[in-house]
Amino acid sequence: MTTQDRLKELGITLPAAARPVAAFVMTAQTGNLLFVSGHIARKDLKPWVGQLGRNMATAEGKAAAHAVALDLLATLNDALGSLDKVRRIVKALCLVNCTGEFNEQHLVANGCSELLVSVFGERGAHARSAIGVAQLPLGACVEVELIVEV
Amino acid sequence: MTTQDRLKELGITLPAAARPVAAFVMTAQTGNLLFVSGHIARKDLKPWVGQLGRNMATAEGKAAAHAVALDLLATLNDALGSLDKVRRIVKALCLVNCTGEFNEQHLVANGCSELLVSVFGERGAHARSAIGVAQLPLGACVEVELIVEV
Amino acid sequence: MTTQDRLKELGITLPAAARPVAAFVMTAQTGNLLFVSGHIARKDLKPWVGQLGRNMATAEGKAAAHAVALDLLATLNDALGSLDKVRRIVKALCLVNCTGEFNEQHLVANGCSELLVSVFGERGAHARSAIGVAQLPLGACVEVELIVEV
Repeated sequence: MTTQDRLKELGITLPAAARPVAAFVMTAQTGNLLFVSGHIARKDLKPWVGQLGRNMATAEGKAAAHAVALDLLATLNDALGSLDKVRRIVKALCLVNCTGEFNEQHLVANGCSELLVSVFGERGAHARSAIGVAQLPLGACVEVELIVEV
Repeated sequence: MTTQDRLKELGITLPAAARPVAAFVMTAQTGNLLFVSGHIARKDLKPWVGQLGRNMATAEGKAAAHAVALDLLATLNDALGSLDKVRRIVKALCLVNCTGEFNEQHLVANGCSELLVSVFGERGAHARSAIGVAQLPLGACVEVELIVEV
Repeated sequence: MTTQDRLKELGITLPAAARPVAAFVMTAQTGNLLFVSGHIARKDLKPWVGQLGRNMATAEGKAAAHAVALDLLATLNDALGSLDKVRRIVKALCLVNCTGEFNEQHLVANGCSELLVSVFGERGAHARSAIGVAQLPLGACVEVELIVEV
C-alpha cells in the first residue's frame, strides 16, 4: 500500500504546504537525511495561539500537535514529491509553549507522534524529545521539527 | 580496555534501561548515526522532579544530569548490545527545567558531559547545547538527548 | 569568489573563535556532518545578557543573533581551516531567552540566518527552528547551534 493510499484510508487530506515566515527554508537535505524546519501549529491557516497551563488544556494541545503533523506531512510531500520516499522518521523535537507548572509535554507531543506512526507504520517509529518552552514564534502553542531518512 | 571494564573501574553499575513513557522509541538509527530520545532524570526509578532556581540548586541539578547520563549509557548498551560499539558521542542537547533567573545551565549539563567523557575518553568529547526550559515531561528537572556515531 | 573574499566584500572581520565554557567541545564531526555546539551571544567578548520582552527589544535581539553568527563563522573557520570547506549550512536551532509574552523569536533568529545566507549564498539556506526559552547559560539573550555539511 502506498502512503497516499494509507492517508486515504485514514481519511486524511493534506493541507497546502506551509511557507517559511522568516529567513530559512522548510527542508534541507544532506546525504539521505532531510532536516525539516520547526513547524508551528496552525488553525484555519493562522498560527494556533495558546499556552498550555494558562489557556489551553492537554487535549487541545494534542490536537494542535496532530495539526502540526499534517503540516509536516504536507511539507515532506512537497519536498520529496511522494511520501513513499520517506524511509524512516528518525527524530522529532516537540516544543510545547507552556507555563512553568504544566508537565504533560509528552502527552501533547503524542498528537504528532501517533499520527506519524499511524501513517508510516514501523517507518514512523521515531526517537523524540518533548520539552516545555517559554514561548514560540507568533504565539503558537506547539512547534515540531523532524529529521527524516529518505 | 573495554568500556565495560572502564565502567567497572569507575564503580558504575548501569541501571535497567528506561522505557518510553509515550508514543516514541528510545533510539532510532540511520546510517551510522544513532539518535537517542530525550531522557528525563530519574531518582529511585521515578521522575526526578524539580526546577532549578526555585527548589533545586546547581549541585543537585548536576547530580540529576549525572543520573541521566547513566540512563543514557543503559539505553545505548541496550540498543547496541555493547558500549564498545559507540564510536563517538557526537552531540548532546541538555535541557534544564528552570526559572527565568537561573543561568547555570552549563554547569548542570556538565554532570552529564563529564560522565560521558570519563567513560568514553576522547570518544566521549561531544558538541553540546545547554538551555533553560519552562518545564519538562512529568516535572523532571533535567532532560538530555544524544546523537551518537556507532 | 572564496568565502574569505565574500567576508571582505561584506566588511566582516571574524572575531577570535570562542572557547568552551564547560565540559564540551565546540564542534564534533561525524562523516561529512559537523555539529556545532550552541554558541551564546557575546558583546565585547562577554556574555550578551538580556531577556527579550523584559529588558531587550526585537532589534537588539536580532543584533545579538547576528553577533552569534559571526562567532559561529569564526568557529567553523577555526575547525575547518577555511570557510570554503562549508558545503551547506543544513540546520540552525535558535534559542531566544524571553518572557512568556514575547513571540518574535523568528525575527530575532533572522539576525543569524540572514548573515549565513549573505555569506554563503545558496550554501547558506538552512532549515531552522526558533524557540523561546526560559533562560540561557550565563544569562545570554540568544544561543544558536548548527549542523553543517562539510
